[in-house]
Amino acid sequence: MRIAVLGTGSVGRAIAGRLAAQGHEVMVGTRDVASTTARTEPDARGIPAYQAWATDHPGVKLGTFADAAAHAELVVTATQGEATLPALESAGAHNLAGKVVLDISNPLDFSHGMPPTLLVKDTDSLGEQIQRTFADARVVKGLNTLTASLMVDPGQLGDGDHSVFVAGNDADAKATVVDLLHGFGWRDVIDLGDISAARGTEMYLPLWLRLMGSLGNHVFNIKVVR
Amino acid sequence: MRIAVLGTGSVGRAIAGRLAAQGHEVMVGTRDVASTTARTEPDARGIPAYQAWATDHPGVKLGTFADAAAHAELVVTATQGEATLPALESAGAHNLAGKVVLDISNPLDFSHGMPPTLLVKDTDSLGEQIQRTFADARVVKGLNTLTASLMVDPGQLGDGDHSVFVAGNDADAKATVVDLLHGFGWRDVIDLGDISAARGTEMYLPLWLRLMGSLGNHVFNIKVVR
Repeated sequence: MRIAVLGTGSVGRAIAGRLAAQGHEVMVGTRDVASTTARTEPDARGIPAYQAWATDHPGVKLGTFADAAAHAELVVTATQGEATLPALESAGAHNLAGKVVLDISNPLDFSHGMPPTLLVKDTDSLGEQIQRTFADARVVKGLNTLTASLMVDPGQLGDGDHSVFVAGNDADAKATVVDLLHGFGWRDVIDLGDISAARGTEMYLPLWLRLMGSLGNHVFNIKVVR
Repeated sequence: MRIAVLGTGSVGRAIAGRLAAQGHEVMVGTRDVASTTARTEPDARGIPAYQAWATDHPGVKLGTFADAAAHAELVVTATQGEATLPALESAGAHNLAGKVVLDISNPLDFSHGMPPTLLVKDTDSLGEQIQRTFADARVVKGLNTLTASLMVDPGQLGDGDHSVFVAGNDADAKATVVDLLHGFGWRDVIDLGDISAARGTEMYLPLWLRLMGSLGNHVFNIKVVR
């Protein structure tokens, strides 16, 4: 499949790398290609420059958000929460119409320090905002409840016996995403219903963050035992 | 131990019945004893009157919120979220001072229909409100992430291999609650830190409610796989 991954951070790299290794035609989208490719040093948190990662993943193309979305049959948002709607605006509604948009992003607000608060919650969600803003896109919320490395390789933890969620209004779009998730190794994919269920998975993040602090580790996930 | 359970609903009955069966001296607290004992018919949802339950649990006493709290070393709030602070006010701050208050309640607002929204979230929680309002009580948030029957009998599901959380500012109070939880059969009790972590477990409820809808069942829980 031709897939756009919007965002060059750890989530974007994990998703793009795994999809390319599976034979998909992947283009990563970024706000400013020249700026993304110019940087060669690790950032303040020690994360290598995108170009260092790209050198190891020659099959993954890089373009603007619009280039990537125009190229794609399926678009993945792997941006920081506050950057998701601007990235999709930049991609262009005409480049999203009719396409599956898998939204992995979380509306976390770090501007007031730690722990982050939520930009939207309770009566709305980022997933719903995207679906309202791009009414012709087929938005599926998923994979936003765990760390990047586990998203694409659930088997590294607990024999892969843990859970991931999808929510969206379009059954075919959800089926497409579930197929991708099965390809990553997910066995327990729970369909939470329409896109308003994104409220639930996004509001889980405060618990996830506290768990990360208590466990001293981000490679964990929840299994829904039933 | 002498324990007060504030609330006569399904959570209160589950907790009170289990604690009494374990030999604790339990008094259930209610707003209006005469009204609670006068009712003999099931309610609109088919839940039997409190008196029918009490007849099967002769070891459990009934009193006002203040009677119950005055009697107790440990106070459990098993009220609807919007009734928790009023119940504790009625119990009286002097009857809570120095005592462990295990808050099981969730600040769900059903007044706008289903799904409920949250009365408090993100930058505050009901657990924190209780701790601020009753500064001399030692508040522990716990057991608010699952259905009543599982709270006191985790072994009925998945061999009991699933997780429950505690949060609170007082280490000794948390240790007391963890002992009670072990007595119920819990093996995986995760300490999330201070009482502000109640934000995380309370904001998990929207996901819990969507899961209940998708699974068609409320007897489920999450295991933190790590």
